[in-house]
Parts: sequence; structure tokens; C-alpha cells
Amino acid sequence: MPGVITFLSDFGLSDDFVGTCHGVIKRIAPDAEIIDITHGIPPQAVLQGALVLANTVSYMPEGVHLAVVDPGVGSARRPLALRDESGRLYVGPDNGLLIPAAERMGGIAAVHELANPSYALQPVSRTFHGRDLFSPAAAHLIRGVKLDELGPPLAADTLARLDLPLPELTPEHILATVLYVDRYGNVQLNVSTEQLEEVGIVPGSKVELAVRGERYFAVAARTFADARPGDIILYEDAYDNVALAISQGNAAQMFGAHAGDRVLVRPL
Amino acid sequence: MPGVITFLSDFGLSDDFVGTCHGVIKRIAPDAEIIDITHGIPPQAVLQGALVLANTVSYMPEGVHLAVVDPGVGSARRPLALRDESGRLYVGPDNGLLIPAAERMGGIAAVHELANPSYALQPVSRTFHGRDLFSPAAAHLIRGVKLDELGPPLAADTLARLDLPLPELTPEHILATVLYVDRYGNVQLNVSTEQLEEVGIVPGSKVELAVRGERYFAVAARTFADARPGDIILYEDAYDNVALAISQGNAAQMFGAHAGDRVLVRPL
Amino acid sequence: MPGVITFLSDFGLSDDFVGTCHGVIKRIAPDAEIIDITHGIPPQAVLQGALVLANTVSYMPEGVHLAVVDPGVGSARRPLALRDESGRLYVGPDNGLLIPAAERMGGIAAVHELANPSYALQPVSRTFHGRDLFSPAAAHLIRGVKLDELGPPLAADTLARLDLPLPELTPEHILATVLYVDRYGNVQLNVSTEQLEEVGIVPGSKVELAVRGERYFAVAARTFADARPGDIILYEDAYDNVALAISQGNAAQMFGAHAGDRVLVRPL
Repeated sequence: MPGVITFLSDFGLSDDFVGTCHGVIKRIAPDAEIIDITHGIPPQAVLQGALVLANTVSYMPEGVHLAVVDPGVGSARRPLALRDESGRLYVGPDNGLLIPAAERMGGIAAVHELANPSYALQPVSRTFHGRDLFSPAAAHLIRGVKLDELGPPLAADTLARLDLPLPELTPEHILATVLYVDRYGNVQLNVSTEQLEEVGIVPGSKVELAVRGERYFAVAARTFADARPGDIILYEDAYDNVALAISQGNAAQMFGAHAGDRVLVRPL
Repeated sequence: MPGVITFLSDFGLSDDFVGTCHGVIKRIAPDAEIIDITHGIPPQAVLQGALVLANTVSYMPEGVHLAVVDPGVGSARRPLALRDESGRLYVGPDNGLLIPAAERMGGIAAVHELANPSYALQPVSRTFHGRDLFSPAAAHLIRGVKLDELGPPLAADTLARLDLPLPELTPEHILATVLYVDRYGNVQLNVSTEQLEEVGIVPGSKVELAVRGERYFAVAARTFADARPGDIILYEDAYDNVALAISQGNAAQMFGAHAGDRVLVRPL
Repeated sequence: MPGVITFLSDFGLSDDFVGTCHGVIKRIAPDAEIIDITHGIPPQAVLQGALVLANTVSYMPEGVHLAVVDPGVGSARRPLALRDESGRLYVGPDNGLLIPAAERMGGIAAVHELANPSYALQPVSRTFHGRDLFSPAAAHLIRGVKLDELGPPLAADTLARLDLPLPELTPEHILATVLYVDRYGNVQLNVSTEQLEEVGIVPGSKVELAVRGERYFAVAARTFADARPGDIILYEDAYDNVALAISQGNAAQMFGAHAGDRVLVRPL
């Protein structure tokens, strides 16, 4: 069976960046299959990229997970390839992007810096390492090149890591952070169902929200279908995070909410 | 030959929804090929999804046609797999999305509810049946699992159906409905060339249009190239529907037209 | 090994146009692999399409390069297939779209008009030659049909060609044209690093820019990482063109710049 490379980036699809990386991969590894997880990560939003990769990796075939959200391209940040404890491989920049996914899959087993010029396109440009460094490395790995041929090993504790925002829980409320807003306007929070329960919120509970200085009333529900059109609901989304939605509406638009915003959640 | 799964949804490409479904399919059916018809159906626009699937299905290889535009996810609406009289298979929600395509291909030969937990990801989430129910069912079907292994048969006359908007024809005019607006601003109407001819409109005819309270003059033409820049034309589009366009311009933008708007068409 | 068809267009991904062409190709050539270079070329922007194809073609596997940006569809413009001196094949309209790529790869070796109805979908619609003419031709070529079976040869000097904008150089300044604006707001100019050097601009030089009546100060740099956040930089991009960027910002948005705009570049 040919191997699978999954590919996530902030490249968007309006330019050729994604297509060019596909071309580079296929010239090196003609039998590789590429699954585009998404290229819609907002430009340079490393945290959102890391969360989406961590959420989706277990749904992907085993293989190489290529991820490029890379505001530091051209700087001293290191290009990496790593292997997790389950045997999956990852390629991307040393800015924390790969770590939450690898930790979700059991932790980091080995990391190497991409330093061997034989496995890059020469000359390596200063601004498009996706094309010149990361895609070639992923393609060579899927063809069977060993991790340690790509460059010297690095200690995992030297890798850059992201600050994942944590919710503040008090007995009366949760102060949450918006992690992600999707196409439907659903607003993902950094809160689990267990944490909701700690402040006494269960399906059916009425809840007060404060977002961007405005107050809203919402209800905790199992799914959209439990609410009336226009109701604001608090539900567990398909990635086990608590999210806000409006039945048959767009919650993010109504709240004016973006990734990074704070949301106060208080049971009534 | 490996089988082909075509995939149409309102998921967009900015999130991971499409990529995650690809991953799920490839884990179950590594040899399947996936053709993305489009994921740009407006959120929850079941009618537009059904029309695009019906327009395109005959251009697709035979196989499994997966379609997910599913505002009722998590409610009592049933998940379906069906076979048309030509042997093609379809997977999606019971909201009318699949029916116009299956009828275009000769009609429904068999329908089954997706009820067998062996062919779903467990636990099935309440909000992402595309990932947990529909993609796995499509992947198992392309591997050769029989329709009746997925769940119990349903009577075709119990399926939810869409009201397809019909034009109103009088001897003097046609009152049409906008079915679809494309990237170029072309405005597809629920009218055929034969219906235009019934009110006396043929290529070269001058026509009056009324859209959103404004009047416009247009000309019936065979193609954009028959009109001068800026002319509004009425032409038969590549899917055999009558559509409005502006030569070298964007008709939908000028009219402010959206799917569902009414358009009065009157020969001069 | 199955052949590769690369595909570039202005079709966008919100409609079914791209997916329908994939379906048509796969019905004719089930083993072909398709690499989507991009479908985000602005509607009917033939010059931008031609530049992106020329920039990317050398990163693509050899095979057939299908490109459709076709404002003249339905007019007398001819549909073409051509071969470059390196053996790569191209399919698209005779409006200049294919020429810069073929010239980048050594020049045009042979051109044929797509005229053989056996290699088109019948009837050919007047508005969607991507589906009915170009995709079938590309699919038949990748299966081994010879160029001269598609239709009669044409003389290369009868082909439509684009006016590529050239910069105006004086000893004091360069008057450049914006070729392309990408997702990150980077603004590609029709200027090479060698031309910058001719007016005395090298990495580290301070530069004055005039764009849309406003003046800005910028610095020539090797990469984003050499500049402070908010600095405007002039750098050589990954396709060897000079481009404008703002470190950690969006240059196109700040300048209000679009393809075709003039930019005056003057060393200080």
C-alpha cells in the first residue's frame, strides 16, 4: 500500500502554495496519497493550526503528517521531523504546531532537525519552506527514508511549545477562551463537559453568558435539535469541546466572537 | 479498479470537516478514490445541494455518491443509503438531498436506513454525522458491503422530499425563481429553453426583467460572445437551465440577486 | 505509473465546476492523478493565470497541464493542445494562458487545435468548455492519444499572446506593476533583484515607494525575519520576483494594492 501524507496549513486555496507542494511531493513520491486536512487555518495562526491537527490526527491513516503554519520562516526557528510513540511521523516548523497532536498520540518519541540538504529542494528559498524543505522531507519519509537521515537528533525539551489557554474555574462561573470559530458560526471554547458539570451545568441548565461586554441567555443542550430556532445553546461538539451555537443561526456573527475572545459562563 | 466515492457538502474548506471525512474514508477503504464535487453549498442549503448533485451526477464515475447538507443532524431525521435504477449508490440524510439526483438517473431502486453500528464510528457524535455515520457507510459500500447490511429497508414513499420551485407561465410572461448564483455572478433560473419559447422568447429576442423591484432590459442569446460588454443576456447554461449573465460583468451583483428570489421575464 | 494531469483555473471551489471536470477526467482516464495547482485565479484574469502556471510548472510532475481561464468561451477563440520542447503537454484556450509556461520550459514544439469531436463530450455546451472540451482532451492525452489526433496543427506564430507588463527603469527609479497579490497580502512586482541592483538597491537599502498616490518608506531585506514588526520590506520572493510585504502584517491591505497597479520604487 502506498503511504499517506496528510497536509494542514494556513496557505489557503486562492494561491498556488498548496498545489505547488502537492507537485513537489508527487515528483519525489509518485505513489504517495495526500489528504488535505485543511488549508484554511487563519494566516499565521499557529495555535489554531495545532488544535485542528490534534483534533483530527486520530481520524487520519497512519503515515506522515505535514503541517505548515510558519510565521517565523526565514528566521532561526528550526525545521523539524518527529515521531510519536504510536509510530506516526510529523514534519513542520519548531513553533509548537506539531506538539499537541503528537502528545495526543502518546507523546514524542524522537525529533530530528531537517538539516540534510539531500532531502530539500536546492536552493532553499527564504520564504517558502513548505515547498523547499517540509514537502520534500515528508515525501522522502513516506518513501522510507529514516528520520535520522534527515538531520541531527534534538532533545524534545528544547522544542518551542504553545501556551494552550486554560479556563478559569470558580464555584460560580467559568471564564473561558474562544479556541475556534467554524464555518457555521459555532464557537468552540477551551472547556470540557466535565468542567461545565463542576459549576453545575448539565443538559437542560439555563446559563448566562458574557461576551464582548454583552449578556446573553443560553441553555445547555445535547444537540442543536433540542433547541428552538434562535436559541443559544451550549453543547459538546464532535471534538469533545464545549461550544456555543444558535439553532438555525450563526452564533459567532451574533456575538462578534473571534478566536482568543473571553467568554464568561455562569449557571442561572 | 478501485471504486470512486464522490463527495458533496456544505462543509466549506476553511475547517477540517472535509479533510476529516477523507481521513475516515481512507482508513476504512484505502484504495477508494474521492472526487470532491464541491463543498461550497451555502450552509444548510439542502435545495441547492440537491440541484448541484442532480446536475453533476451523470458526469461522475459510477460508485458511491456521498452528500451531506444536514441541518437536522442530531434530530430524528434518518440517515440513508440508497441505490438508483442505474446501480449507483448514494449516502446522506433523509431530507430530500439525494432524491433529485437518483430520479435523474432512473429513480430509486432501494433505500435502507443506516442503523447497523458496525458500519459507523463509535460513539456516534450528535453533531458530525458526516464523519461518524455517512463517511463510514460510503467507505464500506465502496469496499463491497451490501446495502441491506447497513440497516433495514425503507419504503421510498416515506422519504422526505423537497419542494422544487416551479415557474409560473402565462401567455405574457414567466415568473421564475433563482435556483443558484455562481462565482461569476451568473443567475440560474428554474426555467427551460422550451418554456422561454412558449412565451415567444428565442435567441435575439429583447426581454424585460423585473428583479427586486427594479426593471432591466436584456437580450436572449446563445452565448456570452454574442453580446456586447455590459449587455444583460438570457442564455441556456451548461446544465440546460436558463440563466442571466452580464457580458464581462457580474449579473448577481448588479441585481443583488440570491437563491430564492423571484424574477419576472417578459418578451418585448 | 499512471500519468498526472495538473489543473489550474479561475473556477473557484464554491461551485461544482472543478469537481465536474475531475469527474469527466476520471470517467475517461480512471488511473490519471489530478493535481490542482489552484482554482483561485480571479475570474477571467488570464494574465494572472498565465503567470501562476509559468511559476509552478517546473515543480509539477511531467504530464498534461490543463488550464482554463477563458473569458472568450463560446466565441471564435480556438481551443488548443500543445507540447513544449521538454515534452510536457498543455491544454487550454488560445488566449495566451499557456504560452509563458511553455516558453519557460524551452518553447513550443507543436500546437494543435482541438477539433476532433471524438475527443470531446457531445454536445459541446457554449459556456463550459472546461467540462466538454478541455478536460476530455487532457484525459485522452494522458491515456496516450497523440496530439495530432486531436485536430489540425497550428503555426505557433498565429497563437494569441499576452502583453506581459515590463518595468520602466531610469537611473533614479523603477516604475513597476503589481503582478499578483497573495493570501498574506504580499505584493509581487514585475521586477527582478538584478533590476533593483541596477538602481542601487541591495539588501539593507532604504527605499521610497509611491502606491496609489501615497508615499511609504521601506527597506530591502533578504527575508521577513530581517525586519521589525510593521516594517515594509522589499524582498525576493520564492518565484524570483521582487515583492513587497509588511513584517507580521498585510501589505496589500495597507497599500490598497491590486494586480495591475503601478508602484514607483526609488532608493533613498
